[in-house]
Amino acid sequence: MQIILNSPLDMHVHLRDNDMLKVVAPLTSKTFAWALVMPNLVPPIKTLEDVVSYKKRVLDETWNDIFTPYMTVFFSEELTFEILKQLKSEILSVKLYPEWVTTNSQGWAKNILSPRNLEIFANMETLWIPLSIHWETSDFVLDREKNFISIYEELATRFPKLKIIAEHITTKELAETLDKFENLYATITVHHLLITLNDLAWWMLKPHLFCKPIAKRDEDREALLKLALSWNSKVMLWTDSAPHPIHKKECSGCAAWVFTSPIALQLLTELFEENNSLNNLQKFISDNAVRIYNLKPNQKQIILEKKDFIIPEKYWEVVPFKAWENLKWSIIN
Amino acid sequence: MQIILNSPLDMHVHLRDNDMLKVVAPLTSKTFAWALVMPNLVPPIKTLEDVVSYKKRVLDETWNDIFTPYMTVFFSEELTFEILKQLKSEILSVKLYPEWVTTNSQGWAKNILSPRNLEIFANMETLWIPLSIHWETSDFVLDREKNFISIYEELATRFPKLKIIAEHITTKELAETLDKFENLYATITVHHLLITLNDLAWWMLKPHLFCKPIAKRDEDREALLKLALSWNSKVMLWTDSAPHPIHKKECSGCAAWVFTSPIALQLLTELFEENNSLNNLQKFISDNAVRIYNLKPNQKQIILEKKDFIIPEKYWEVVPFKAWENLKWSIIN
Repeated sequence: MQIILNSPLDMHVHLRDNDMLKVVAPLTSKTFAWALVMPNLVPPIKTLEDVVSYKKRVLDETWNDIFTPYMTVFFSEELTFEILKQLKSEILSVKLYPEWVTTNSQGWAKNILSPRNLEIFANMETLWIPLSIHWETSDFVLDREKNFISIYEELATRFPKLKIIAEHITTKELAETLDKFENLYATITVHHLLITLNDLAWWMLKPHLFCKPIAKRDEDREALLKLALSWNSKVMLWTDSAPHPIHKKECSGCAAWVFTSPIALQLLTELFEENNSLNNLQKFISDNAVRIYNLKPNQKQIILEKKDFIIPEKYWEVVPFKAWENLKWSIIN
Repeated sequence: MQIILNSPLDMHVHLRDNDMLKVVAPLTSKTFAWALVMPNLVPPIKTLEDVVSYKKRVLDETWNDIFTPYMTVFFSEELTFEILKQLKSEILSVKLYPEWVTTNSQGWAKNILSPRNLEIFANMETLWIPLSIHWETSDFVLDREKNFISIYEELATRFPKLKIIAEHITTKELAETLDKFENLYATITVHHLLITLNDLAWWMLKPHLFCKPIAKRDEDREALLKLALSWNSKVMLWTDSAPHPIHKKECSGCAAWVFTSPIALQLLTELFEENNSLNNLQKFISDNAVRIYNLKPNQKQIILEKKDFIIPEKYWEVVPFKAWENLKWSIIN
C-alpha cells in the first residue's frame, strides 16, 4: 500500500545555523515541500538583512531538493511600520516569544500588551502579516499555556483581522478556545500527539522527550489528537523539530525540544491510519496551512509505502524522537 | 553562632551496596546518629538473613562513627506471622512499594488490599511493627500520591493500632490528611521542602532534581514546609538520599532521586533559620521519630557553625543536590 502526500508543509521548524544547519536542513528538505523556519538563532533574526541572509544559508543547504523555506522574524520593539512593510515580501509571519520561555528567547519583553507592542500588532494587521505566538506565561509549568489564553482573547478581540497562530498547542483548554475566535489558528506537533508528562518523567526521566511547552495530561493529548484527526481547518502540522546535539540533551541541564523532521510524516501516517483517519492527513500536513497562509503549493509529492522503517539511533549528533523504534511506514522517494 | 543537634536521625536513606555503600554509608554515619536503611537492593532485602547480613555490611562501613543503622524489610507475601516475629527485633519497619513506582520496586503486587496482604498488615499490627509506604498509584504523575489517599484511609481505619508512615509526602492533600488519623505519620525530604516541578523542568531539564515522587506545585511545597517548621509531632525528616552514579543521571533514561545525606542538616538549618523556626528543628530531625518509633537516642551530637560551606561538585561519582552552591552553615565536628 502507498500513500501520496502533496506538498507536505512543516509550519514550524528550527533549522539552526552553521554545522547543525548543514545536518538538519537537508533532512527537512528531503521530506517536506516547504517549511516555516524559526528565527531564534543567537543572535535572533530581527532585520530584513538577517532574514535574507539566513534564507540564503538555508537554500545553500537544500538546493538539491524541491524545497521552499518560508521565513519568520523575531518580534521586537524595533519593528516599525516601514520595517514591517519591507519585511512583508520576505517573511510569512512574525514570531513572538514571551521572555524566557524557550531556547534563545531571552530578551523579549514581559508585557505583551504594552502600548508599543499593540501598535506593532495593529501595523501587522494593516499589512496582513500573521502573528505566531509561543504561548506560555512564567507560572507553574503545567499552567503556563492555559494562563495565556486571556492574552490571546485580548489580542484576537482587539485585532480581528490579525491572523494569530497559537504555536504548538498542548492543552485541552486552548484546543477548545480555537473555535471561539475566527482569527485564531493553531499548530500541533507530532510529539504532542503521542506523549504526556508520564512519558517524560515516569520511573526514569527521559531528556529526549523534554520539550517546550512540556507534554501534559492524557486528556490534553486526546484533545489535540481529536483536532488533528478531524476535518478541523484551523490546525496545522508543525514538527517544532529542534535539534540539539546529544551532549546538550544528556547532561545536568538538558535543552528543550525533540527532533522529528525526518520521521514526522511516517509517524503521522501510522497514527492517522491507526485512528481510521488517513483521509484527513493531507489537510493536516498541508492543505490547512495553504489556506490559512494563502500559499501556492510547489507540487512536491512524498510517497510513503507500508514497510518497516527503524528510526536511526542518531542523525549526526542528534538523537531523534523514538530512536530505535520501528515504524510501519517508510518514505520511498 | 553554633547550633547543637542531638542524635539527628535520617528516617529513610538508601545506602545501596558494594562500592556505592562504601562511599555513602560513611557520609551518612558522619552527619547522622542513626538512619533507617531502605531494603530496595537487587535482589531486595526480604528475609531475616538478608537483614542481618546487610546490617553487617552497613556496620562494616560505618564502624568509626557513633552510628546506628535501623533496618527495614521489603514487603512481600512471604511475610508470615512467624517470619515477622523473628524479624521484629532486627527491623524497625516493613517497607511497602506499590509495583513499578520506584527504583528496584518491580515485583510487588498491584492489589495492596488483597486478602493475603490484609492478613500481613493484621499480623504487623499485632506485633507492633510499623508499615512504611512509598505512596503512589500508577496514574498521571502528579496525581499519584493524591489518588493513593483512599488506600491509606482504608488501611488506617481497618488497622487502628498499626503505625502507618506515609513516606516522602509531596502534596498539600496528603499533608492535610495526616491529622485525620491518629495512626498516620509522615516523612518529608529536604529536597521536597525546596523544589517544585518548575525547578526540574523549566527552560532546561535538571536530572539531578528528578526524584520520586516528583516535586509538585509551590502550594504543595508550602504545605510541607508549614508542617516541617511547625510543632507538628507527626512528621519526621528523611533525606531519601538515593545516590546514583553520574552516568545514570546524565543519560537518555535518568534514574530517580537526589543525593542529600552529607548536606541535609546544613540545608535544613538554613531553611529553619530563614523561617524563624530554629526552635523546631530538633523535633523534625530527631525527637518526633524517637517518639513515633519508640527509640532510645545514642547521644551523638552534631555541631553546626554559621560559616560558609560550598557543596562539592561530586562525592565520588555522585552529584549531590545543589552542587557548587554556597550554604550558610557548616558541620564542624
